Amino acid sequence: MNSITISTLQEYLKTKYDNPQYTNSLFMKLVEEVGEVAEAINKIDGRKADDGLSSLSEELVDVIHYAVAIATINDIDLEQVMIEKDKKASVKYHQFPNLQDYLNNEK
Amino acid sequence: MNSITISTLQEYLKTKYDNPQYTNSLFMKLVEEVGEVAEAINKIDGRKADDGLSSLSEELVDVIHYAVAIATINDIDLEQVMIEKDKKASVKYHQFPNLQDYLNNEK
Amino acid sequence: MNSITISTLQEYLKTKYDNPQYTNSLFMKLVEEVGEVAEAINKIDGRKADDGLSSLSEELVDVIHYAVAIATINDIDLEQVMIEKDKKASVKYHQFPNLQDYLNNEK
Amino acid sequence: MNSITISTLQEYLKTKYDNPQYTNSLFMKLVEEVGEVAEAINKIDGRKADDGLSSLSEELVDVIHYAVAIATINDIDLEQVMIEKDKKASVKYHQFPNLQDYLNNEK
Repeated sequence: MNSITISTLQEYLKTKYDNPQYTNSLFMKLVEEVGEVAEAINKIDGRKADDGLSSLSEELVDVIHYAVAIATINDIDLEQVMIEKDKKASVKYHQFPNLQDYLNNEK
Repeated sequence: MNSITISTLQEYLKTKYDNPQYTNSLFMKLVEEVGEVAEAINKIDGRKADDGLSSLSEELVDVIHYAVAIATINDIDLEQVMIEKDKKASVKYHQFPNLQDYLNNEK
Repeated sequence: MNSITISTLQEYLKTKYDNPQYTNSLFMKLVEEVGEVAEAINKIDGRKADDGLSSLSEELVDVIHYAVAIATINDIDLEQVMIEKDKKASVKYHQFPNLQDYLNNEK
Repeated sequence: MNSITISTLQEYLKTKYDNPQYTNSLFMKLVEEVGEVAEAINKIDGRKADDGLSSLSEELVDVIHYAVAIATINDIDLEQVMIEKDKKASVKYHQFPNLQDYLNNEK
């Protein structure tokens, strides 16, 4: 199975969503899915009877789908923002290697 | 800048989070960040005065960070779930190519 | 200090919000506040450094404010729905007295 | 039907929830319900097929239920916080009468 880069996922989602006016609508779907992640965790933790209808993995994929879609329609290069944000966090929390170095070591 | 595959991002986050017992704590951080995405959109849409302190791109990266982290500590292969979920959705909504084909065409 | 009934709170908020078209906007504010409740709890639980700027009580009041406001602009009589929903739950979970009886006993 | 004051609702919920350690669990349920409010609004707005299974009023009542329950187990007097917060907001946004005056006028 081919690996999925975040930039490729953004290009793919660009074929489905391309108008920044969808931001609020996509966010409303994101919140719906976050609620379903909560439901899945509540079932795992026993706060709700587990009817087998929730899937933590599928709900998390949906949350990521809508977060990436919102970024995509707002022309946000997620990989770049991730690298930069991670660099700042790794200095702040003294955690090395950072994501950039981790990727370089991988090559 | 090297591309970031979702599997590499999961391996990287595995070095930071490795205990499924963090699921609730990471989810609480995810919800905090979802609130900050809402705040950023509220400022963009004029529902809140824009003090320049919110960044839609950084808040979305944080939401993705915690969603991927929760998946990682629960041993969820996100790329596999994404491909399978997308396949079902593309049949349901008659949207082609699906992600798998899109990735293959990319090669 | 006079007690606040939910119906009076709805009448009061009706003077501020009266158009059902605000539903999405008010919900976006609700989600922002839910994120701030998460932040307050994260600080209480030590998942975030406590800078003293969060107040669990104020964030909860904000969540209730927006939930009641959304109900109000959609002409939802919250007291009635609460009583009915509680009646069903008390039968389902064998919890007595239910809210209606509790209120009657209070008189 | 007797009116429900917020203080009475807190007393009633105190009979069901009385341990501040439930804060995270109740918040997880709150987030699940916020997702269901999003789903109900998505159906109303046509972002999701309306199967008639969602009820905006019931989901909003659930959100209020859990927000009030969290306040209750943390010994938060919601009516007092509401009055004080509203006073500050009415000065900030020049909106009169404020809730306190509104309640006094009601008597």
